[in-house]
Amino acid sequence: MAANLSLSILKKVAQVKIIRYSSSIAGFKPRRSLLYVPGDENKKVQKASGLDADVVVLDCEDGVAQSKKAECRDNICRLLPTLDFGRSESAVRINSIDTEYAAEDIKAVFSSEALPKALMVPKIEERDQLVWFKSKVNDLMKNHTDQSPLKVICQTETPIGMMNLRGILEECLIPDEKLQFEAFVFGSDDFLASIGGTRTESAIELLFARQNFIMHVKGFGLQAIDMVYINFKDQEGLARQSSDGAKMGFTGKQIIHPAQIDVVNKAFAPTEERIDYAERLVKAFDAHQLTGKGAFAFEGNMIDMPTVLQAQNILNLAKAIV
Amino acid sequence: MAANLSLSILKKVAQVKIIRYSSSIAGFKPRRSLLYVPGDENKKVQKASGLDADVVVLDCEDGVAQSKKAECRDNICRLLPTLDFGRSESAVRINSIDTEYAAEDIKAVFSSEALPKALMVPKIEERDQLVWFKSKVNDLMKNHTDQSPLKVICQTETPIGMMNLRGILEECLIPDEKLQFEAFVFGSDDFLASIGGTRTESAIELLFARQNFIMHVKGFGLQAIDMVYINFKDQEGLARQSSDGAKMGFTGKQIIHPAQIDVVNKAFAPTEERIDYAERLVKAFDAHQLTGKGAFAFEGNMIDMPTVLQAQNILNLAKAIV
Amino acid sequence: MAANLSLSILKKVAQVKIIRYSSSIAGFKPRRSLLYVPGDENKKVQKASGLDADVVVLDCEDGVAQSKKAECRDNICRLLPTLDFGRSESAVRINSIDTEYAAEDIKAVFSSEALPKALMVPKIEERDQLVWFKSKVNDLMKNHTDQSPLKVICQTETPIGMMNLRGILEECLIPDEKLQFEAFVFGSDDFLASIGGTRTESAIELLFARQNFIMHVKGFGLQAIDMVYINFKDQEGLARQSSDGAKMGFTGKQIIHPAQIDVVNKAFAPTEERIDYAERLVKAFDAHQLTGKGAFAFEGNMIDMPTVLQAQNILNLAKAIV
Repeated sequence: MAANLSLSILKKVAQVKIIRYSSSIAGFKPRRSLLYVPGDENKKVQKASGLDADVVVLDCEDGVAQSKKAECRDNICRLLPTLDFGRSESAVRINSIDTEYAAEDIKAVFSSEALPKALMVPKIEERDQLVWFKSKVNDLMKNHTDQSPLKVICQTETPIGMMNLRGILEECLIPDEKLQFEAFVFGSDDFLASIGGTRTESAIELLFARQNFIMHVKGFGLQAIDMVYINFKDQEGLARQSSDGAKMGFTGKQIIHPAQIDVVNKAFAPTEERIDYAERLVKAFDAHQLTGKGAFAFEGNMIDMPTVLQAQNILNLAKAIV
Repeated sequence: MAANLSLSILKKVAQVKIIRYSSSIAGFKPRRSLLYVPGDENKKVQKASGLDADVVVLDCEDGVAQSKKAECRDNICRLLPTLDFGRSESAVRINSIDTEYAAEDIKAVFSSEALPKALMVPKIEERDQLVWFKSKVNDLMKNHTDQSPLKVICQTETPIGMMNLRGILEECLIPDEKLQFEAFVFGSDDFLASIGGTRTESAIELLFARQNFIMHVKGFGLQAIDMVYINFKDQEGLARQSSDGAKMGFTGKQIIHPAQIDVVNKAFAPTEERIDYAERLVKAFDAHQLTGKGAFAFEGNMIDMPTVLQAQNILNLAKAIV
Repeated sequence: MAANLSLSILKKVAQVKIIRYSSSIAGFKPRRSLLYVPGDENKKVQKASGLDADVVVLDCEDGVAQSKKAECRDNICRLLPTLDFGRSESAVRINSIDTEYAAEDIKAVFSSEALPKALMVPKIEERDQLVWFKSKVNDLMKNHTDQSPLKVICQTETPIGMMNLRGILEECLIPDEKLQFEAFVFGSDDFLASIGGTRTESAIELLFARQNFIMHVKGFGLQAIDMVYINFKDQEGLARQSSDGAKMGFTGKQIIHPAQIDVVNKAFAPTEERIDYAERLVKAFDAHQLTGKGAFAFEGNMIDMPTVLQAQNILNLAKAIV
């Protein structure tokens, strides 16, 4: 039974995926750069709202001391209706669902005159936590004036959350009128602390975790957001790690400082050269299809359907971030 | 129940494995190089049948345009009885089971006067697809004159197929009179397109997927065939990637051009030096066993059972490809 | 049902983990170096007991020839009451549970006048094997004078054992009065032989297996012991691989020669420099908490809770190995 349910959900994924990656659908939201700011620091929040990050996350969780949790909530409620986030998506990261703060955080968000575009839910370890979250938010949305569905960004940060990722993702895929799960974020620092590892420049210690995460999240058609590069003064290192992540399949990266926005936005956008190549390739493929040949040689490589699909993905993303 | 069934199958695996890797069993088939040719291109098929690839795959799938699918099927039926594949294993890759073409492809193969030695089934994502395939082929084989069991080569190409790999492999292990599942092929291009990754020279972006694939496929005692090296003019790069794959545990590699056969056959065959070392090691181990010592020092290393087993594997493969 | 049971066990893990890693708990046992000696070689056993390995394993398994199994058991029984292992933990590795030897090995251990501190169980592939082991040992401990719980170290060495790791770990977490599961050991040589891989200096061929192993074992709050470095004359290579493993999250390493003890003990102990940094960081964090700031800049990096936790782990280990 459980297996069959899972399979029927997976069947839907394929369709969802096509819609999601299609450039023709309105509302496709690139999330290359996801900038955290502590929700209790007005200056930082105000500054962040005027920058070029794809997502600005007003944080109630790790970035905020326990003694400031209530103040932070109130502050976010006051700020949301007053700020213009421009092309950035506004998001609020609540505290993790197992803490006493989560319910209060959610309540506070819905008491604001303006909702954020997205909620971010950290430290998800079990499917049941999402069931609780969905029911909580659905209740509150019934009475809210803003009726457009709220986007949800989830965060996986522990070994147990990673082991349960498939079930968690299946829960996200169940259609919900008021909530739309769009992205998963890999919380590498918490993960590394959980396994007792040490951060290195190459991040080889996280290779398994990052690629396992990508397989699951992209396999279910959602966006996958990569680890933080913690040394915010090292632009070269940031560029290198961003590029590594993009090549693995990540669609974006968490950032902790405004100085990281441009590098990351650039790393997760296709280069002119790759767009050119993709255009030439798709054109050549279309021509060959007419002559009835499937696989064909193109600039020294044998090209088949998956390579063509990849080229099409590049063109779609390029259009969405203009 | 499901868990117990799975365990009883796994118990059988161990025995199957010993039989499969034993050099004394007739019918052991090395699959170092697996060459694709579009089934609708007569010249290429004829040329391929006379080359030294371990497997020649007449493709009905990605290598053939949609407008040519029917023509391709007919062509393969006509060609099979006329071609001499020499020491190569002839295989037909049908279209994926979820397409409208799969059933027609299978029917066409069985309408030919000569069956191929193997069928290749691409894009397997769920166990149920194999159940369908097995029942379909069993029905057709009842009425066919050729009664020797047909070999099957499966292909995993998507994140969901990768997640479901264990169940799929368990299905393959269930004994079947008319079908023998012997190898799994990792479809890296489709996989990379699914997760939105980018091919790099080191293939680091696929490390998780390749090694996860190996653990499952080899753990169930089947052969594991590695990704395509797409730049067919770069023999050095091909040699390097082949060698990397062989060291990880792959037993062979997909190829897309005749120029890749020799490099790949060589990379997946043990070197003279390694055969020599394995022979010396096994001999030394046998002598030490007589004196009653288990682990022993040999040329500066402590040697125990697994290392001896590995040496034995090398000798078995060396015999099979003479 | 099964899923719920698993979740309730996982909930307990979190608590267990906090206790286990807390420096204040008596009985915390670092296992940086785990030295194997064949149980039938008196001289080697006697020498090993006087060295500085964290664990000394008297081996009944791979290191002992089949013709010597009975002699080895008797020998260990005679030796255990006479040897002083100093600060080392004495352990006996029995033969794998599927062999005819396992039951005899366990019986022999309990017939000795002095029990070892730990039992080591190799080649675990299924949860049911542990169920058998637990019941067997519980029966024998009822009648034994030594009533303090016996520590258990498990070994994962095959693809199937790796695939079943989660269920195996859940079985270990079920509280048991007489047995305490504390560590898992990755048997890389057997694993590599099972998948047909080849050992390389960088060990890249085992990256997936090692990191998958760590995620599971550390995720369930147990210690994770890394692969053997087989060339015991190469101290530099040993140091490099030990350091790689420590950074990935391994807490210790198997060794096969006394010359490997010091390098390994050092690699899995925090350096003075890291202890200093951890102390400064924890102090700075405490101060910032008082001012109400959560995340904060420290020596050029943004620091949050996970990074602080990691620093605390380092300080705890440093205290335990003084």
